[in-house]
Amino acid sequence: MSMEKRISMAVIRRLPRYFRYLSDLIRLDIQRISSKELSERMDITASQIRQDLNCFGGFGQQGYGYNVQSLNEEIAHILGVDRRFACILIGAGNMGKALANYENFRRRGFDITAIFDIAEDKVGTQINGIKVHHIDTMAKYLHRHPTDIAMLTVPNRTISDITDTVVKAGVLGIWNFTPTDLRLGDNVVVENVHLSDSLMVLGYRLNELRRNREAQGPGSV
Amino acid sequence: MSMEKRISMAVIRRLPRYFRYLSDLIRLDIQRISSKELSERMDITASQIRQDLNCFGGFGQQGYGYNVQSLNEEIAHILGVDRRFACILIGAGNMGKALANYENFRRRGFDITAIFDIAEDKVGTQINGIKVHHIDTMAKYLHRHPTDIAMLTVPNRTISDITDTVVKAGVLGIWNFTPTDLRLGDNVVVENVHLSDSLMVLGYRLNELRRNREAQGPGSV
Repeated sequence: MSMEKRISMAVIRRLPRYFRYLSDLIRLDIQRISSKELSERMDITASQIRQDLNCFGGFGQQGYGYNVQSLNEEIAHILGVDRRFACILIGAGNMGKALANYENFRRRGFDITAIFDIAEDKVGTQINGIKVHHIDTMAKYLHRHPTDIAMLTVPNRTISDITDTVVKAGVLGIWNFTPTDLRLGDNVVVENVHLSDSLMVLGYRLNELRRNREAQGPGSV
Repeated sequence: MSMEKRISMAVIRRLPRYFRYLSDLIRLDIQRISSKELSERMDITASQIRQDLNCFGGFGQQGYGYNVQSLNEEIAHILGVDRRFACILIGAGNMGKALANYENFRRRGFDITAIFDIAEDKVGTQINGIKVHHIDTMAKYLHRHPTDIAMLTVPNRTISDITDTVVKAGVLGIWNFTPTDLRLGDNVVVENVHLSDSLMVLGYRLNELRRNREAQGPGSV
């Protein structure tokens, strides 16, 4: 068992958001913040914020608020952004290129060390200074360069060979942009990113907004 | 007030996932499924599934399960994927290109009709058959082409002018890939996509997996 108290995934999924907002406050030179003020900025209820932050120690003081810097550092530590992760990117298509060019990832501790693709015209080129290798050389590369995370931006049909190779090579995390939810057992963590899901939720909310407006009649804007 | 019962956002956010899994079942020619089987496939508890699906009518029958086709159609209808949304894409960088090339969006009812960018060398080109226009012509374009959704993949500093323009033009939905959470009041719906947040959660879970393994000792793989 781990010594650290197990924090629920629902709380964990909110932590990056706290981290972003607190980082903004630091840039604005704000040193203390109450749960009420943070609540207004983040559009989360103050009680939810107090409950979340209590999960890992409760840094707030009644009538004083939270120390922005130390709260941010603690969240960074819990999230592990003070550590570095070696990553490979599989798939040098448009999404692969977009990810390889995200400077934010490196700042958050995620270093893309190599890119793999099957297309001969991409192999040997560089994206944002990172070399594209042929996918057939991936197993060998992973053997020589211990890697934490594989970012997957390839078509569905090629997935299973690729996940076999990376999991056998000891990669522990998969960031999955393919349309299929990957489930690879308890020895690998997978974060599935489904952009279509997010867009469908937007479509739903837009229809709901429209229905509510129509119900309010033509006078409403 | 809308006639349809208000469904919580937590349930709404799970609907695209139900929709995807049920669409897969239809492709596999599976006509009925119990909440238990669906639970195993989707890695959600059966009671959660029953509770979610009860929110909009309860199509399951004891000892019979759910009718896959009609459940899928109902979810599609609730999500509004049987309607079409006119979209513009703002920002023709790597992420913009990736989004413009996602064939899935069109299949789900989201048509990108135009792309806008500030870079002179991009203006006039096409991405996946969609023309790139200069950002200065956007207000005029929106006036002539009523648009539901703006997809934002531009740098942070240029956001506020752009959101002003699209909101004034009557765009009701913003799909926001910029690093800042946008909040534009009650008359616009915003879905913020933060890829870094997802990556940070992956990093957290990877560290947790590693800690648990270490705690179990060197014998465990």
